[in-house]
Amino acid sequence: MNESATIDRRQRRMVETASRLTSISRRLTAEHGLGGFTIEELCDEVGVSRRTFFNYFPTKEDAVIGADPEAESQVFAEQFRARGSRGWPVVIDDLLELAIQHFGAMEGTAEEHAHFFAALDREPRLLKRFIGMNIEREKQVIALVAEREGVTTDDLRAQAVVHILFSLLRSVGDRLHGLAGPTDLASLLTESLAAARTVMAAPTPRKAQP
Amino acid sequence: MNESATIDRRQRRMVETASRLTSISRRLTAEHGLGGFTIEELCDEVGVSRRTFFNYFPTKEDAVIGADPEAESQVFAEQFRARGSRGWPVVIDDLLELAIQHFGAMEGTAEEHAHFFAALDREPRLLKRFIGMNIEREKQVIALVAEREGVTTDDLRAQAVVHILFSLLRSVGDRLHGLAGPTDLASLLTESLAAARTVMAAPTPRKAQP
Repeated sequence: MNESATIDRRQRRMVETASRLTSISRRLTAEHGLGGFTIEELCDEVGVSRRTFFNYFPTKEDAVIGADPEAESQVFAEQFRARGSRGWPVVIDDLLELAIQHFGAMEGTAEEHAHFFAALDREPRLLKRFIGMNIEREKQVIALVAEREGVTTDDLRAQAVVHILFSLLRSVGDRLHGLAGPTDLASLLTESLAAARTVMAAPTPRKAQP
Repeated sequence: MNESATIDRRQRRMVETASRLTSISRRLTAEHGLGGFTIEELCDEVGVSRRTFFNYFPTKEDAVIGADPEAESQVFAEQFRARGSRGWPVVIDDLLELAIQHFGAMEGTAEEHAHFFAALDREPRLLKRFIGMNIEREKQVIALVAEREGVTTDDLRAQAVVHILFSLLRSVGDRLHGLAGPTDLASLLTESLAAARTVMAAPTPRKAQP
């Protein structure tokens, strides 16, 4: 018990250090560009050694992009599978609920968001990496949905539900960005989902399907 | 009658020249990067003078991005308004039908698509401009939808329907890109819309709304 508490504490500290390196490097990139600060300056602000930096990230660019939450993604996938297939209409609810649970806390403040987007705006090659990473994540989630629902990854429903999920997450990101204070991610996403369902309702009364 | 026929012919020729400058500049950028060819080389391939080039585009980068179909967008907006508000569920149908009519023919072949994406991949600052342009277009369409449906531009339904429209157009773009030959844009979009409606159906039986 004592040993696992120590491991937990250590893991939590590592996640925090990585997250601070990312947060400060985003602000510095937003303010000065990638070439406008050194790894040493970043480490000084965060209060870690240069050696510690390289335990987390191979380059400054990687620090700005941030650590890939690999372990979190695994848990996300397991929990999504465990819920089991219950028809297409619940897939988006499952995805959003799990996304709120897993990634909600990691999203940071509106100010951090603003710094990140300013950094992407200032450095097109970061933007390119970020987009590539998002396309990769979309593909992973499409594969996960396809697997659970028993279809192939080129199934249009699997693709549509994941594209809509990401567009909901992006639009909520935009709104957080536009707002001043901290906001409730879950209620923003629930509102956006309800709006998306309203505009995607069938325009004429649907016939009963056999 | 004769005079307007001459104007039409001239306008058509101008659109064609702009479109060929864009098409060839995309291929050259995909192959050699923006710095890997001159405006003179581009003009030689297209068979126009350097002076003609500058009638269409201020820079090479602008040629790759392509002419903004301002006149087309105006007609699109007028036709969308003219259909009138008939409830949220028909908005996406109206948008897609008009998008197919107006922009379908301008989309080019799968090969041109591939060149464009290769050019964006090679030159992150083109990617940045392209994304900025798309965000601008999304905003314009959100304003158009909000106006017709009598809501403000921060209405979540207006935002959701436009985000989903663009995500459908993008996903069909990806599929055209993946396919070898020419394909039927309209049927691809109709299939994708039906898939999106399936996954966005209410998960529990809906109660009658007053």
